[in-house]
Amino acid sequence: MKQVIRDKRDGRALTRESIAAWIRGVTDGTVPDYQSAALLMAITLRGMDREETVALTDAMLHSGRVLDWKGLGPPTVDKHSTGGVGDKVSIALAPWVAACGAAVPMIAGRGLGHTGGTVDKLEAIAGFRAELSAKEFASQVKRIGVAIAGQSADLAPSDRTLYALRDMTATIESRPLVTASILSKKLAAGAAGIVFDVKCGRGAFMETRAEAASLARDLVYVAEAFGRRARALVTAMNEPTGLAIGNASETAEALSVLRGEGPPDLTSLTRLLGSAMLVLAGVAGERHEGDARLERALGSGEAVRRAEAMIQAQGGDPRVVATPALLPRASIETKVSVDRAGYVSAIDSRSLGLLLVAMGGGRERREDSVDHAVGIRLLRKVGARVEAGGTVALIEARRDAPDWAEAARRAFTIADHPPPEEPILIEDLGS
Amino acid sequence: MKQVIRDKRDGRALTRESIAAWIRGVTDGTVPDYQSAALLMAITLRGMDREETVALTDAMLHSGRVLDWKGLGPPTVDKHSTGGVGDKVSIALAPWVAACGAAVPMIAGRGLGHTGGTVDKLEAIAGFRAELSAKEFASQVKRIGVAIAGQSADLAPSDRTLYALRDMTATIESRPLVTASILSKKLAAGAAGIVFDVKCGRGAFMETRAEAASLARDLVYVAEAFGRRARALVTAMNEPTGLAIGNASETAEALSVLRGEGPPDLTSLTRLLGSAMLVLAGVAGERHEGDARLERALGSGEAVRRAEAMIQAQGGDPRVVATPALLPRASIETKVSVDRAGYVSAIDSRSLGLLLVAMGGGRERREDSVDHAVGIRLLRKVGARVEAGGTVALIEARRDAPDWAEAARRAFTIADHPPPEEPILIEDLGS
Repeated sequence: MKQVIRDKRDGRALTRESIAAWIRGVTDGTVPDYQSAALLMAITLRGMDREETVALTDAMLHSGRVLDWKGLGPPTVDKHSTGGVGDKVSIALAPWVAACGAAVPMIAGRGLGHTGGTVDKLEAIAGFRAELSAKEFASQVKRIGVAIAGQSADLAPSDRTLYALRDMTATIESRPLVTASILSKKLAAGAAGIVFDVKCGRGAFMETRAEAASLARDLVYVAEAFGRRARALVTAMNEPTGLAIGNASETAEALSVLRGEGPPDLTSLTRLLGSAMLVLAGVAGERHEGDARLERALGSGEAVRRAEAMIQAQGGDPRVVATPALLPRASIETKVSVDRAGYVSAIDSRSLGLLLVAMGGGRERREDSVDHAVGIRLLRKVGARVEAGGTVALIEARRDAPDWAEAARRAFTIADHPPPEEPILIEDLGS
Repeated sequence: MKQVIRDKRDGRALTRESIAAWIRGVTDGTVPDYQSAALLMAITLRGMDREETVALTDAMLHSGRVLDWKGLGPPTVDKHSTGGVGDKVSIALAPWVAACGAAVPMIAGRGLGHTGGTVDKLEAIAGFRAELSAKEFASQVKRIGVAIAGQSADLAPSDRTLYALRDMTATIESRPLVTASILSKKLAAGAAGIVFDVKCGRGAFMETRAEAASLARDLVYVAEAFGRRARALVTAMNEPTGLAIGNASETAEALSVLRGEGPPDLTSLTRLLGSAMLVLAGVAGERHEGDARLERALGSGEAVRRAEAMIQAQGGDPRVVATPALLPRASIETKVSVDRAGYVSAIDSRSLGLLLVAMGGGRERREDSVDHAVGIRLLRKVGARVEAGGTVALIEARRDAPDWAEAARRAFTIADHPPPEEPILIEDLGS
């Protein structure tokens, strides 16, 4: 192990064998955390080439159970997003795509720091169980074509260990570590096709288009190295997605998309990804056909019914799809007002994400519990006209909260002119 | 702590406060090893400037007890060597300098990997106790002007923790970490003056003159930042020092210097360092005066008597100074012969050091025990003429050892011509 650390410290590529030995040691606990921590930092500063990244992904993937959907019938397809504040896409996307004829076995995460997690959002639904056994997960996907579950202990367990260590050692951002972490979980979940949504912009994991495109290419390359079909979309993220920030309100907003009532940016992004998934799964021949199938599933109510079936199968109250008021919502509203008139030119996602954590709606530490009912509701998005003293957002909390309203106000930048409109899709990296 | 790691990962200088907080956490165990390991690797790859190195040294130094020799009478002076195979200088140097009127409170180390340690070598003397309490150490220095002891638990305890971690995480070689580790111990031992012997050459810690001089300057800079007098000599190390490699035989050889019977290279190096120590302590005005004092202490027998007094005070048999045959010596000799005639042009110190470990005379791991009696005796040094089939060294082991003899033979390079003679002193960096 010391020689492996030394090799990476000195900038040499690691062999497939030494990477495999390291991950075996991480999985069975024979490599001490401090040696892994030193190696993680050396990887962060020295990098890994694609061959090493594939070898690392392979070792992490095979540290646990790998699901297999052969004989399922419908083609399987999954989506991964690099995440962002207000990104509740998966909750609408998975049942919607399933309603169009592809199966979606989706493993999702919990929130940490300024970004939320799909599992936390779904757990805002009374009774909803995200922790499914591999058997329950498989049986649900067979039965209704869709499940969204947390990462169970037997899927890529080494990723769980390494992620916790990376979180404590400032090695979260390393590109090859990110790639291997994402893919080991997604490949273990077993879908034949994977669409990657790589966010780009202020507050996103990748700030520049070049960085985002480079990560997108790595993700597609590694997924294809394992015989999966893959496509990556680089999408714009210069403000929170949709209008709701907070677990219950984000679930409500995502479900509103399936009723045809979602905010335009969230709806467009969900359609864009859904269509790409249908094409990748071979259910649709090209994008317009994918769009048309999505439209039909919306119009027929099949998307709503599939979401209800999924929620019911996982123990939740399916009536929330039609009646979002059943979801918890903190009742004390504080207005967020701006001083001057003008146009919203930027909304700082990261600081709103951190504000939600401060309000109890997110996690500072892995073991923290989350208040599903609190949130921040945006009334104005980038490009909107505002008057002096006008309200741009609401704090929904369990107390009157002028301090939080002030923090939210600082996240808004008001300018004399509206910023140029930007398309959602920045780059489309298919195979 | 995560922010501190992040700062160094991104190449920023750490503040005095964050370094102090880290070392407090290392000392009281509240910073987990994996976070220290990640930070150590980030420091190894990103470096530390001199201000950070001084702050790190300061924090490590004050993690434990700092000895104070005020009111002792004679000036205190110490020596540190970056170490090498066959380097037994301290054993002769400390009592010799003490015999000239400076007090030498010396903290020494144990061997690990290919380099040996002064404490292991002294423990080859029956009864010798290197583990002294701070009180015993101080009282002995007061009484006879010299003590050589292992690093007790209360001197720079954070260095002990960090060194063990560095050893396991391939972060031993980092310049600022080396500097802070050396100086935290030496400064804690409290001598007013410190001479550094920075080895340079094949098999030394620093291979090039530029690297060695740069480390030498750092050591002097940091020592002076703490108000100590300091001087660094960069000395040549292209073969083992002296003729003996192995704990008991190295102690015997070092003591032979005090009887005027040491091998020329070892004697010259010991004189060079001794004279520098006497000048630094103010006992001699300049080098020639230091040389003359050393000469007188040798001629008068005072150096021998001081070594005897030191060994006796620490529980060992003082007769070994006059009668080295009292030291243990493995009795089975295997000749190391070379195939061709020519001149010895190089002797690979590192491989001989590792051979000694394989023979049981050194440590692979910190907890290994050491066989003091085994060794490698050089009969020819660099520049010597050899005949085909001639013997260049002897393996002294507990069994007939043609395999070890073969390994030793490969450490010798024989050429048609002798290499150019090199002076011992390469550079003298005083203040």
